Amino acid sequence: MKAPKSIQKLVDNFQKLPGIGPKSAQRLTYYLLHVPQEILDDFGQSIENLKKNTKICSTCFNIGESDPCPICTDEKRDQSKICVVEQALDILAIEKSGAYKGLYHVLHGCLNPLENIGPEELHLHDLLPRIKNTGIMNITEIIIATNPTMEGEATALYIQRLIGKNNPEIVISRIGRGLPTGADIEYADEITLSRAFEGRREY
Amino acid sequence: MKAPKSIQKLVDNFQKLPGIGPKSAQRLTYYLLHVPQEILDDFGQSIENLKKNTKICSTCFNIGESDPCPICTDEKRDQSKICVVEQALDILAIEKSGAYKGLYHVLHGCLNPLENIGPEELHLHDLLPRIKNTGIMNITEIIIATNPTMEGEATALYIQRLIGKNNPEIVISRIGRGLPTGADIEYADEITLSRAFEGRREY
Repeated sequence: MKAPKSIQKLVDNFQKLPGIGPKSAQRLTYYLLHVPQEILDDFGQSIENLKKNTKICSTCFNIGESDPCPICTDEKRDQSKICVVEQALDILAIEKSGAYKGLYHVLHGCLNPLENIGPEELHLHDLLPRIKNTGIMNITEIIIATNPTMEGEATALYIQRLIGKNNPEIVISRIGRGLPTGADIEYADEITLSRAFEGRREY
Repeated sequence: MKAPKSIQKLVDNFQKLPGIGPKSAQRLTYYLLHVPQEILDDFGQSIENLKKNTKICSTCFNIGESDPCPICTDEKRDQSKICVVEQALDILAIEKSGAYKGLYHVLHGCLNPLENIGPEELHLHDLLPRIKNTGIMNITEIIIATNPTMEGEATALYIQRLIGKNNPEIVISRIGRGLPTGADIEYADEITLSRAFEGRREY
């Protein structure tokens, strides 16, 4: 017996999502069969309208409802700092921490030669005009907050060279590396531990 | 900064699905932002149409495109056996194994007093008329294939008493318990091991 067409179609669609395998896709679909039609309609429409109601900010490439985005237009934020992140999602996490009050720049990915993603596929070189064309204040610091993966580190190094070459007055920093809160030294991997020693701070 | 409304709405919808937490819901939503609009439209419509194009079989309560379902109308199947399962999804898994060629009966859940699910909420008592009203052949065996969980076992026991009481001629069986293929005896839990000993078979 094969599953009915309308079920199979939704299973196929779920399976295309990252981290969802064939079994999870089936479970999600059969779960939705027990859900009222209004909720299904609402769910379906929210997928169809996802991109229709969002815009990419032409300054920082964040995803929002307006262009420029609320962060770029907020005059209370520190206009002298730009934090470079891989994805718009990373901004949400950083904003939640409340640790940073400056501007952002979203690359929409990271350098990945194996998947044919070079500097042209990202909003990497769009950083340069932002450094020169700042209105009220000069940019004094670029904080690179790409992921601590091999690709993220390569992207960070690329940005550091791209900006550092002609802008010696700008501080280029990388977010701190070390043990996350709640971690166990016993179970930490060697690279994390060696980064934690390199990044030690005096009391 | 809060996420745009259309993004937040989809995150909320994903989060209602079983096994998807707030972080996964965000990841899935932001992944879909990079997907072409045609695929989003197709995905959304497949959710909206999921239940519109499916029917529940009035005999076995399986979910399909027609009533009665293809299994109930297939004359090549063994009409003397009924396999009782919790969910329509379980039929797909059993059919895939090819180990069973009889009829099915879907309960659409299992007895769960903690969640207020009693025999009335399930298609439990709908089993009785099926035993009596068989057309060509009498039912000779009921195979109970509810999950090997506490609730599934309680449901199996309930069915065994419900049918066994007045139908001594019908064999009531429970699917085999023991170690799954590829398992490691060293890591098997005590209950599984004791069931494996109970269910041992002579060579």
